[in-house]
Amino acid sequence: MQLFFTDNIQGNNAILNEEETRHCAKVLRKKVGDIIHFIDGKGGFYKGEITDLNKKDCRIHILHHEQTEAKNFSIHIAIAPTKNISRTEWFIEKCTEIGIDEITFLHCEHSERNRLRLDRLQKVALSATKQSLKAFLPQLNDLISFKDFIHKIADNSDYKYICWVSEQNLHLLKNEIQGKDVIILIGPEGDFSKKEIELAQNNGFSSVSLGKSRLRTETAGVVACHLIHVLNEL
Amino acid sequence: MQLFFTDNIQGNNAILNEEETRHCAKVLRKKVGDIIHFIDGKGGFYKGEITDLNKKDCRIHILHHEQTEAKNFSIHIAIAPTKNISRTEWFIEKCTEIGIDEITFLHCEHSERNRLRLDRLQKVALSATKQSLKAFLPQLNDLISFKDFIHKIADNSDYKYICWVSEQNLHLLKNEIQGKDVIILIGPEGDFSKKEIELAQNNGFSSVSLGKSRLRTETAGVVACHLIHVLNEL
Repeated sequence: MQLFFTDNIQGNNAILNEEETRHCAKVLRKKVGDIIHFIDGKGGFYKGEITDLNKKDCRIHILHHEQTEAKNFSIHIAIAPTKNISRTEWFIEKCTEIGIDEITFLHCEHSERNRLRLDRLQKVALSATKQSLKAFLPQLNDLISFKDFIHKIADNSDYKYICWVSEQNLHLLKNEIQGKDVIILIGPEGDFSKKEIELAQNNGFSSVSLGKSRLRTETAGVVACHLIHVLNEL
Repeated sequence: MQLFFTDNIQGNNAILNEEETRHCAKVLRKKVGDIIHFIDGKGGFYKGEITDLNKKDCRIHILHHEQTEAKNFSIHIAIAPTKNISRTEWFIEKCTEIGIDEITFLHCEHSERNRLRLDRLQKVALSATKQSLKAFLPQLNDLISFKDFIHKIADNSDYKYICWVSEQNLHLLKNEIQGKDVIILIGPEGDFSKKEIELAQNNGFSSVSLGKSRLRTETAGVVACHLIHVLNEL
């Protein structure tokens, strides 16, 4: 099934934006009268009939709407983007497939990348959301310094973890986080600095490990996301 | 740490092949007398001194050898390669990082790819093995038809699973496979055919699910590999 996306919905009418319209008309050759399926990224699955189609937009009359219930836990991963951006794109795609709610990009002391094209990354998330038939589109937040991020969420009541390499860290799986909202920090290739780890720990983050293997940044992100799902599905 | 690879080891002497030699001499500018580290892909970590270096090979006198113990379980994933081969390469890289012993490529009824360049895929595995400082190099097996593979391992005493999409399938995590040798089949984008599932079931494979999300082939492979690790680390 081909899914479209729009958050421009009013009553029984929806409008696709220019890019989705182009895909609908040019690539899939849809016409007025055709039935299409789309999501709003907030849990809604829709079925509708195309009533108007031009270069700029596609108007749809909604025939059916089904609301997906949000799961009873949420995952927010704050991660240092990789030098090779395709690795970060891959991380977004895979976490979206597995299921993730929010991604924040961190600028850390050992960061290899200080700039991001958030719009491009959002396209990766949207494409993976549609491809895996998810009803919820993850929220992507632009680069923020590690310090600012920690202070921003210091009073947050979520379960907060920082992953870094140490044999003394408890495995993420050993934490009781079933049904909880979880924030996990994943560092750059050179790991978090001592200062960063201290700052996080002083602001309510527990240090955890992701297992015995030495993982690349993007793999650590996907493994962390998957572990939270495993804990909630067990 | 930069790791090299060779399985050409006799007594206290080792020889790097042409490609590893080129990397050693041209990229890393190593010289006679320099100390390098290498693996044999079978659990051995070595430290040695370069005694001779030319265009074709690099000879090393071994100074130190440490044998890594094999883990008490093994993972063999048989998977249909993806249409876009970079997705399969990604699967190999990530499973190698997480830890995998053997990968077989399956030709299935709904397969989108009937040819492979195994040598190229082996390079991906080797590179990921070195990058993640693993002592064991996974074994990659060339394309084989689904039917031939099933018959080939029918008498094998391993724990055998076939992953396919059905709400009735037990989650892989609910199986008692700690400390066991496991073989898992992962199908192509269109999933295994009914006939293939039947054939596997009639030959000792249990049907399992990997959770609630709709995953691409390569993601399913990585998730399955990671789940076996999780079960063994819990």
